[in-house]
Amino acid sequence: MARTGFQGRKLGEAFEIWTEMLREENVTILMGLSGAMVPAGMRKIIAWLIRNRYIDVLVSTGANLFHDIHEAMGFRHFMGSEHVNDCKLFEEGIDRIHDVFAYEKEFNVIDYTLAEIISEMRGVMSSREFLEEIAGRLNVKDRNSIVIAAYESKVPIFSPAIADSSIGIAAALAKREVVIDTIRDVEELTEIVVNSEKTGVIYVGGGVPKNFIQQTEVVARLKGYDVRGHEYAIQITTDVPQFGGLSGCTFEEGVSWGKISGKAKKVQVNCDATIALPVLAHGLIGIRRQKYPIFNGL
Amino acid sequence: MARTGFQGRKLGEAFEIWTEMLREENVTILMGLSGAMVPAGMRKIIAWLIRNRYIDVLVSTGANLFHDIHEAMGFRHFMGSEHVNDCKLFEEGIDRIHDVFAYEKEFNVIDYTLAEIISEMRGVMSSREFLEEIAGRLNVKDRNSIVIAAYESKVPIFSPAIADSSIGIAAALAKREVVIDTIRDVEELTEIVVNSEKTGVIYVGGGVPKNFIQQTEVVARLKGYDVRGHEYAIQITTDVPQFGGLSGCTFEEGVSWGKISGKAKKVQVNCDATIALPVLAHGLIGIRRQKYPIFNGL
Amino acid sequence: MARTGFQGRKLGEAFEIWTEMLREENVTILMGLSGAMVPAGMRKIIAWLIRNRYIDVLVSTGANLFHDIHEAMGFRHFMGSEHVNDCKLFEEGIDRIHDVFAYEKEFNVIDYTLAEIISEMRGVMSSREFLEEIAGRLNVKDRNSIVIAAYESKVPIFSPAIADSSIGIAAALAKREVVIDTIRDVEELTEIVVNSEKTGVIYVGGGVPKNFIQQTEVVARLKGYDVRGHEYAIQITTDVPQFGGLSGCTFEEGVSWGKISGKAKKVQVNCDATIALPVLAHGLIGIRRQKYPIFNGL
Amino acid sequence: MARTGFQGRKLGEAFEIWTEMLREENVTILMGLSGAMVPAGMRKIIAWLIRNRYIDVLVSTGANLFHDIHEAMGFRHFMGSEHVNDCKLFEEGIDRIHDVFAYEKEFNVIDYTLAEIISEMRGVMSSREFLEEIAGRLNVKDRNSIVIAAYESKVPIFSPAIADSSIGIAAALAKREVVIDTIRDVEELTEIVVNSEKTGVIYVGGGVPKNFIQQTEVVARLKGYDVRGHEYAIQITTDVPQFGGLSGCTFEEGVSWGKISGKAKKVQVNCDATIALPVLAHGLIGIRRQKYPIFNGL
Repeated sequence: MARTGFQGRKLGEAFEIWTEMLREENVTILMGLSGAMVPAGMRKIIAWLIRNRYIDVLVSTGANLFHDIHEAMGFRHFMGSEHVNDCKLFEEGIDRIHDVFAYEKEFNVIDYTLAEIISEMRGVMSSREFLEEIAGRLNVKDRNSIVIAAYESKVPIFSPAIADSSIGIAAALAKREVVIDTIRDVEELTEIVVNSEKTGVIYVGGGVPKNFIQQTEVVARLKGYDVRGHEYAIQITTDVPQFGGLSGCTFEEGVSWGKISGKAKKVQVNCDATIALPVLAHGLIGIRRQKYPIFNGL
Repeated sequence: MARTGFQGRKLGEAFEIWTEMLREENVTILMGLSGAMVPAGMRKIIAWLIRNRYIDVLVSTGANLFHDIHEAMGFRHFMGSEHVNDCKLFEEGIDRIHDVFAYEKEFNVIDYTLAEIISEMRGVMSSREFLEEIAGRLNVKDRNSIVIAAYESKVPIFSPAIADSSIGIAAALAKREVVIDTIRDVEELTEIVVNSEKTGVIYVGGGVPKNFIQQTEVVARLKGYDVRGHEYAIQITTDVPQFGGLSGCTFEEGVSWGKISGKAKKVQVNCDATIALPVLAHGLIGIRRQKYPIFNGL
Repeated sequence: MARTGFQGRKLGEAFEIWTEMLREENVTILMGLSGAMVPAGMRKIIAWLIRNRYIDVLVSTGANLFHDIHEAMGFRHFMGSEHVNDCKLFEEGIDRIHDVFAYEKEFNVIDYTLAEIISEMRGVMSSREFLEEIAGRLNVKDRNSIVIAAYESKVPIFSPAIADSSIGIAAALAKREVVIDTIRDVEELTEIVVNSEKTGVIYVGGGVPKNFIQQTEVVARLKGYDVRGHEYAIQITTDVPQFGGLSGCTFEEGVSWGKISGKAKKVQVNCDATIALPVLAHGLIGIRRQKYPIFNGL
Repeated sequence: MARTGFQGRKLGEAFEIWTEMLREENVTILMGLSGAMVPAGMRKIIAWLIRNRYIDVLVSTGANLFHDIHEAMGFRHFMGSEHVNDCKLFEEGIDRIHDVFAYEKEFNVIDYTLAEIISEMRGVMSSREFLEEIAGRLNVKDRNSIVIAAYESKVPIFSPAIADSSIGIAAALAKREVVIDTIRDVEELTEIVVNSEKTGVIYVGGGVPKNFIQQTEVVARLKGYDVRGHEYAIQITTDVPQFGGLSGCTFEEGVSWGKISGKAKKVQVNCDATIALPVLAHGLIGIRRQKYPIFNGL
């Protein structure tokens, strides 16, 4: 596809850049994950990317992690339709995510389960530590899980806007003695970036995960480190730059801020990730990464 | 415009719904603000909306608040262009936000100023308290400011993803003895919603601010309150529902979750807010709100 | 607005470019009109633009002209909703255009009326001549009409894809002895461009009207004329360049083809025209154009 | 993919609907083709779809056919970039189509070649006849061609907006004694639809090709035939319904007009066709269609 035009070519280039990162010896691959990817069925692919170390760090919305835990605990999302009467769905206790359905009651089971787990936790911690604590205490039924794969593979997960999700809701329901200090997330992720010889970024969607990974380069520079910007960059997005938001902004714009290296290999694919991600993952099958970073110090 | 078709009609309906909220006696109006609205020059309009109490609560990205403080301290954003060489901009220390420029050095002045202020702060607090503390300590030159208008008008501002912004960066640079507990944001905003007879929402963009306001209804219900969902709802967005993300999802979808009342007056306008917001604000001139909520208890 | 950012600024710039064209003495202003602008209520604005000679030539989809004739004959489009059961609408004989409704039966009256008029016509003609013939034979009730305003103001209308519209359908129903030779449209519009000292273009949407006006520069060059490309260019569109289509392509791309002058004043506004066009028209009120081209030779 | 969510699911459903059409015995499959698909490298796929009779009729923009002829005559499109100085490209005689380049001079060779061929033609004809005449007279070097595949497979091609393309330009350059009567296109395509037991439609993009195929059902009904609307419908598009245009409108809207059967199997995939079409075509490999319509009478 890299030899066609328009977004088909971009998708081909994304594949080439990703595989080039995997062949490199000293690159840390940071993935940003936003959009309702887990309800849309992308959960197993992300877990598989983690277990194969096609990515090294995950920054995710809280929602994707909540929905992942939902499935890890044995519940499911269902194929629904966007052409429905939402008032009726409400009466029947069905929550809709575009064309995906789920039972409100089952969500509530997870809400309260998480609230219980959180009630047992103590201290001030980053969202990464918080998520590891949860992963370690979950009674998991389906291990094709992002949270579990990351826990077992020592891939750190950050969720700097975790209050804005059902995990945050669960925390608000808990008898809470834990505080999630998301500024510590900034510090931890910056440390990972500073300690990496090179970094590559893969953004599925935009939102907080994209910006949060992007800004690490700014933090590092302000802390006095000589960083060069991310050197590989892929984004799969349905946003565009014209409206000025960070989700849709070009990697070129990121160069002006020093977030992306002026010499980076970079591509943005305008496509729903539910199409682009399976195509990319299909291409990655069989590739074995030789060397990847190990995070013991965190 | 409400008598035309397509998005022109939606914009007309948005105006009608907003003015209807303002005529109501017992409605709390919650605004979500995302996208680079302040760099794009929307700062004075938002400050003016706050001072006239056309809105009662603001949930914002950290970036908009940082850029607002930047201007409040006497610095400026400049009219630039998206057709530029970003490598050169980087060399010249100019940061680009689509067609808006700013000086990296001036941003850094604010980064360090905020870091100093934050170094003086102590304790665990919500982002609302944190932002009020900052507003109270700023040495302001230009009072056409969102943060200052809100501080003076007692309009609470929440920024639940504050770590993901230059304010979060400043906090990471500080000798930090303060912890921002964003789960407390969930609790505080839910309390405001629970104590309101009715709520109306106005989303400029989507992102965390939209979802965070939406989810208060879910939290309230899980805490045992009998809430009915937001009863007025306006969104100005350039996102669409087809890709399943929360930013672009319809208010109808929100009905299935109980976030939006099945009987709500609701409209979504597909338009860049830099066009739609000035048009709406222009129409609001001269309208005087009779009664609005006062938040003493927070 | 021209001093803000993002699409708000673009809209401000569009206004500045349009007024600059109107102040120029020797510029021919060509408007391309696509999208269901007439059903959406933009008809009176377009007719007013024509009568005030804020534009000199119109290239339109056939549909907009059909719907204009529909209203000129005394029928109406109605405010409907996009949240409906379309099967029921079909049973009730209501045609839907997003949130606008119309009666199928009333459309059919116009279909047959036009078929009768067309049955009286003879010869081979351009779509411009064909549309003038129709305008001259219509028994009009509402003169706030694009077709009538153009006829009376001697503003030529071209519709090079006229077969693809209800006017084309009417022609297919007629006892037809007329042939619409749209290649003649190419020749006529190129002649207008060649005989103009300067040209400016205003595209409402993209589609055939945009490309058809753009390509005149290529035709002129191939015919041996020394043309410089359009020197003013405005587009209001909801398309983007990333997918490679002509509707969304940038004016910069047009420069590579020589369609747009390298020195042209040009801007593209990403916004639904049902919002942008009324705002622009509102700004034009009171501006009087000193000099405009007169097309006697056609 | 049909078991995921969002546009990934839609793409899966599109595949299922297409293969179901191919298994049907009495369905005529009409493809609409718009957007710069040939410059983007989709030419061989379309030609392959035609030769395998995965489609029976093609309605295309003139541009795609021109670019196909360009390659059939031995010229090429080249991989370029959208990050370029278009003024320089103009000076160097390179035409840009987003990230695809071509030599203006080579285009001109085809312009004049076609002008010569057209100068030899006589009479009044539909665009289908016109295109067959051209195909029969071309001195072809590369037979992986849409126009040639269609000619050899007796798949009719219509181009009702042909004046709006470089083929139209060539006609305007010719010593022309031929007239393309696009109203005849309406008549011919309606006849095909009326004579088909069932019809299915596949729209790559929107534009004139989509509407032109859609409207055949309206023409047939007005001519007194008892048609039921297309019974299978697929669209791959990057447009959305919110702005009211026909390119982005839903198939549900088409149901209200009787263009699409209320019982049709229908799906719209929001995705650049340069991604979706290769994925679909890849899935079709090996499927052999048992029975397809033969058009001798045209």
